[in-house]
Amino acid sequence: MMRIDCLQYANWSEKIFRQMREGGVDAVHVTIAYHESFRETVLNFEQWNRWFEQYPDLIMKGQWASDIDRARETGRTAIFFGFQNPSPIEDDIGLVEILHTLGARFMQLTYNNQSLLATGCYEAEDPGITRMGKQVIKEMNRVGLVVDMSHSADRSTIEAADLSERPIAITHANPHSWSPGLRNKKDDVIRAVTSQGGMLGFSLYPHHLKGKTDCTLESFCQMVADTADKFGVKNLGIGSDLCQDQPDSVVEWMRVGRWSKEIDYGEGSASAPGFPPMPDWFQDNRHFGNIEAGLRAVGFSDENVSDLMGGNWYRFFAENFTPRGVT
Amino acid sequence: MMRIDCLQYANWSEKIFRQMREGGVDAVHVTIAYHESFRETVLNFEQWNRWFEQYPDLIMKGQWASDIDRARETGRTAIFFGFQNPSPIEDDIGLVEILHTLGARFMQLTYNNQSLLATGCYEAEDPGITRMGKQVIKEMNRVGLVVDMSHSADRSTIEAADLSERPIAITHANPHSWSPGLRNKKDDVIRAVTSQGGMLGFSLYPHHLKGKTDCTLESFCQMVADTADKFGVKNLGIGSDLCQDQPDSVVEWMRVGRWSKEIDYGEGSASAPGFPPMPDWFQDNRHFGNIEAGLRAVGFSDENVSDLMGGNWYRFFAENFTPRGVT
Repeated sequence: MMRIDCLQYANWSEKIFRQMREGGVDAVHVTIAYHESFRETVLNFEQWNRWFEQYPDLIMKGQWASDIDRARETGRTAIFFGFQNPSPIEDDIGLVEILHTLGARFMQLTYNNQSLLATGCYEAEDPGITRMGKQVIKEMNRVGLVVDMSHSADRSTIEAADLSERPIAITHANPHSWSPGLRNKKDDVIRAVTSQGGMLGFSLYPHHLKGKTDCTLESFCQMVADTADKFGVKNLGIGSDLCQDQPDSVVEWMRVGRWSKEIDYGEGSASAPGFPPMPDWFQDNRHFGNIEAGLRAVGFSDENVSDLMGGNWYRFFAENFTPRGVT
Repeated sequence: MMRIDCLQYANWSEKIFRQMREGGVDAVHVTIAYHESFRETVLNFEQWNRWFEQYPDLIMKGQWASDIDRARETGRTAIFFGFQNPSPIEDDIGLVEILHTLGARFMQLTYNNQSLLATGCYEAEDPGITRMGKQVIKEMNRVGLVVDMSHSADRSTIEAADLSERPIAITHANPHSWSPGLRNKKDDVIRAVTSQGGMLGFSLYPHHLKGKTDCTLESFCQMVADTADKFGVKNLGIGSDLCQDQPDSVVEWMRVGRWSKEIDYGEGSASAPGFPPMPDWFQDNRHFGNIEAGLRAVGFSDENVSDLMGGNWYRFFAENFTPRGVT
């Protein structure tokens, strides 16, 4: 069974790459920019190039769905790149194609705040997709860079789903109806995305879980089943948001970047500012088997477990990473 | 017969792209950096992306030798990218792979002056390849970025040919024995390059020609024949150095960049500071047929004319653009 995780941001190390192999993870979409400029993002591509050179038996660069087949044949994990913010393109639409050429496959139009393109989920007002945002969505469609609205506000997300001529994604979030919170998505938002071929990746990040760290595997898997009943099983997958081995300074960087001199706690709080502990049934890449078993336990068929664990993302990657007109 | 020109730096336009088609030019190595920083070089890649989008029936991006086959099948010219200076990698060896991924296939280690890597042909002293230069040559070998020493000093060029584990190139210059000048290459330099599988591309730039603009086609082709006798016909090709439609402000930028506040005339002079007029038998891309006829006239066989007009570069591209270990 294919296993694809459509969002991780770990403190990468040989240990974690080995855990990916132990967990049978065939592909991971990794975040390489939160607030980085273009040049800083290129430094992050460079760092990954070093890791591909250092650990050629464990990981390989992922560019196309077919790279996942190659990774499986050679016992490696294919690493696909994405940005949680459009900061890497700065104010230059030409960088969309440049970054796709370098390997970027997902880009969020916003990260919590208003961006040049759209509105983030923590803003008070959401005026929707901007002038530049409309142009950039068109260009992303052209080159095969997927619009990701995980950290965007509702109206912006629905408009992006409608404006985009190719399916978009919410790579890591859960339904608001199961666990309310600004980062989880209301039904009309999920419907706007999935009804047009887009994908929702279920998050294992405690702030997105009902009961946070104490959320049970059963509750999580039942939520997946309910979501599949509502929106169809074919547009759902996993986007764990695993931030393994990161120091708390990193979650502060994710939240504050350079945009504020004041601390912003995001989904945390003054009393719990750091990364929350993961649930005991999903500590790291070795635990995807638990989710697979949990999905079977709530009644999913073999075929649908396979869809949810990776098959749906595989199909989505195959259809949405190539430039338009190229098959 | 395949036609490949391994160096042009024109003021690009639809007119020139159409002339490439009229001239049956299957591939051109174009310069996209003289003194540009990394970010400025990326802007030049972006400009070419725009042209590929605007003129899809005339030109296409060239990355591998097989793209030349595709260009021929579809009646287009494949455009390969190169730098005449290592300024695009700044002081960051990780940018070698990044720029190769974006499409760079040739990089000169120097442009006339001392660089971080080696010595240019206008310096008084040539201490050879630097510490960083040795590292960068190794990295260029690894990723498939060809070392070009067209504007380098003798010792640096010979050392680069010896240090490099893959063949190197002098993409645009002629033998010093035919037409002396700092930019033309002495026999020991040409031998160091060609005896190890490297290539010399003959230049049509008047400052590199015997008699400059008045050089005859016969003299040029006889020089090619003499060079083939001395170094073998298989390591020679064309690198015209055509700078069509450029204003003289551009040759000043090429020579002075931002490194000097004083004017430097390079191969020109105070009385002739601009671009020299091209010989009447090679004005633009439509005139490659003249060279082909001229080569036949000095006695080259059909097979060798074909080698010189493109076959040798094709083989060199096929062997040297892919990462080491990848075929």
